[in-house]
Amino acid sequence: MPIKIIVTGGTFDKEYNELNGKLYFNKTHVSEMLKLGRSRVEFKIVTLMLRDSLHITDSDVKTILDECLSSEEDKIVITHGTDKMVNTAKVLGQFITHKTIVLTGAIIPYAFGSSDGMFNLGSALAFVQTLPYGVYIAMNGRYFHYNNVSKNRQNGNFEEITIKND
Amino acid sequence: MPIKIIVTGGTFDKEYNELNGKLYFNKTHVSEMLKLGRSRVEFKIVTLMLRDSLHITDSDVKTILDECLSSEEDKIVITHGTDKMVNTAKVLGQFITHKTIVLTGAIIPYAFGSSDGMFNLGSALAFVQTLPYGVYIAMNGRYFHYNNVSKNRQNGNFEEITIKND
Amino acid sequence: MPIKIIVTGGTFDKEYNELNGKLYFNKTHVSEMLKLGRSRVEFKIVTLMLRDSLHITDSDVKTILDECLSSEEDKIVITHGTDKMVNTAKVLGQFITHKTIVLTGAIIPYAFGSSDGMFNLGSALAFVQTLPYGVYIAMNGRYFHYNNVSKNRQNGNFEEITIKND
Amino acid sequence: MPIKIIVTGGTFDKEYNELNGKLYFNKTHVSEMLKLGRSRVEFKIVTLMLRDSLHITDSDVKTILDECLSSEEDKIVITHGTDKMVNTAKVLGQFITHKTIVLTGAIIPYAFGSSDGMFNLGSALAFVQTLPYGVYIAMNGRYFHYNNVSKNRQNGNFEEITIKND
Repeated sequence: MPIKIIVTGGTFDKEYNELNGKLYFNKTHVSEMLKLGRSRVEFKIVTLMLRDSLHITDSDVKTILDECLSSEEDKIVITHGTDKMVNTAKVLGQFITHKTIVLTGAIIPYAFGSSDGMFNLGSALAFVQTLPYGVYIAMNGRYFHYNNVSKNRQNGNFEEITIKND
Repeated sequence: MPIKIIVTGGTFDKEYNELNGKLYFNKTHVSEMLKLGRSRVEFKIVTLMLRDSLHITDSDVKTILDECLSSEEDKIVITHGTDKMVNTAKVLGQFITHKTIVLTGAIIPYAFGSSDGMFNLGSALAFVQTLPYGVYIAMNGRYFHYNNVSKNRQNGNFEEITIKND
Repeated sequence: MPIKIIVTGGTFDKEYNELNGKLYFNKTHVSEMLKLGRSRVEFKIVTLMLRDSLHITDSDVKTILDECLSSEEDKIVITHGTDKMVNTAKVLGQFITHKTIVLTGAIIPYAFGSSDGMFNLGSALAFVQTLPYGVYIAMNGRYFHYNNVSKNRQNGNFEEITIKND
Repeated sequence: MPIKIIVTGGTFDKEYNELNGKLYFNKTHVSEMLKLGRSRVEFKIVTLMLRDSLHITDSDVKTILDECLSSEEDKIVITHGTDKMVNTAKVLGQFITHKTIVLTGAIIPYAFGSSDGMFNLGSALAFVQTLPYGVYIAMNGRYFHYNNVSKNRQNGNFEEITIKND
């Protein structure tokens, strides 16, 4: 069975508008990236939305959840903005127990070259093929369980939540 | 414990000589690629050699095997030219049973941009973290057991060896 | 005598802030671009400011004018944001008659790859070496006299001002 | 009248063959480069041949000369391998006196990114618009008369032929 790739937007897919100098969404680059990566993994792409994750609403998260729940495929990669990735992962993690779901994203738009997007997409596809059922985030070459991860706002990296005991 | 990355060369690390228009090896780009990928995986790089895999000798394979055997780390990624990658994997697979070893490479030099290298490196690092002990090849977004893989010379892709029964 | 390159900012030198997803100025890329272009033209860079040209004030234009007037070199390239490039060129054109001054810029930041910046910089350096004294804009592979050029806001291109007679 | 661009090959247009790791010619990238450079110069491309200049024969040079002689356009840019560029320029210079002809090329293939090609193409197009009739080479941001230029084999740069008097 193919891997499902659910596109929701994020820095991954941002482009530069030459006329006004602003970043915007035009279309997803995931298929192009997989082609460039010479991927031979069987996959199926669904573009649910193209959103900066700062603008992802509760209703959007519900749409993502519904897509995961109704999906035939039990291996799902979700591309997502990094700012609210942990939040979406937590919602999915509460409902989904019989699928492997890996959320991933990028810090640099793919269209700007020299991106972390290719690296993250490669690792997300690998993790989804090998990790047991559960909801994970794949960033910085690592994977994190949905309930033990946060984004460090200072450096942009994802980290385990460390509990300090006194 | 960190992941060990053993560099042996391959298209991954080829560069373009501006003066004579030929491809050559100068130094490995793996650290730079990991930085670009915003990798936060703990790792240790050993550059064993920089060879086109067409020029890898039996003695070179022995050197790679020795490095794997004597390695403290039990998770090892090896960057390697694609032409003889299967051959090296088979030798390692016969001797190494208590480590996870993932060989990877690229079809396009990293230095030429728009490479499959970032994608493959991302997937190799993910596979080495999640696969059980054994020797594998990570190419085209997939992983293959060392004893069930071949490179398709027509299209450059790696494939399972399919056994046809009559 | 070397060519003077006066850097004032513009899209040319914008970079992407990975932490907040916004564009900003860090440092000029002009030296790096000249190196990449294998330029062997003798030059001298002065970074006067790093501004989006939308934020260039009258006082900034005065600073640019003063730098041109006091310059020993009589061949000057100015990198400048495209939005107010015509405006600055007009001010310079009124005062400077015994130097060749070429303003240039880019529509795509150099740091985002696949840029028009390298192309424009190459043409600006060529025009400044060959055009007679005067103030010009070099964009889109062409040169324009300061008093006969406007930026087309619809497509981002520079054009002659055509006078329609009825 | 448009500028004629005569394509003869050279490093400019070399590509990387993923299957055998060799460089080869597929098609010219000049139109793509002009588009990327946002060129609005009127031009007409003729692809005469795609040759490494080491393989350019006397008969090839004759073909280039004939194309220049019979051309309606009096502004002509020729893309050419750098190794024999001076040789071809010298032949053209002996026959052509009523056109402006600028030969240019690259040290790094355009397809490998971070190229000098965009820079050189920008400068060649500028020089052809501004220089008087004659045959020139545009490399390294500079222009050279056909009879006063040589390629420095040590560093790949083009230089004037300096005559040392004792």
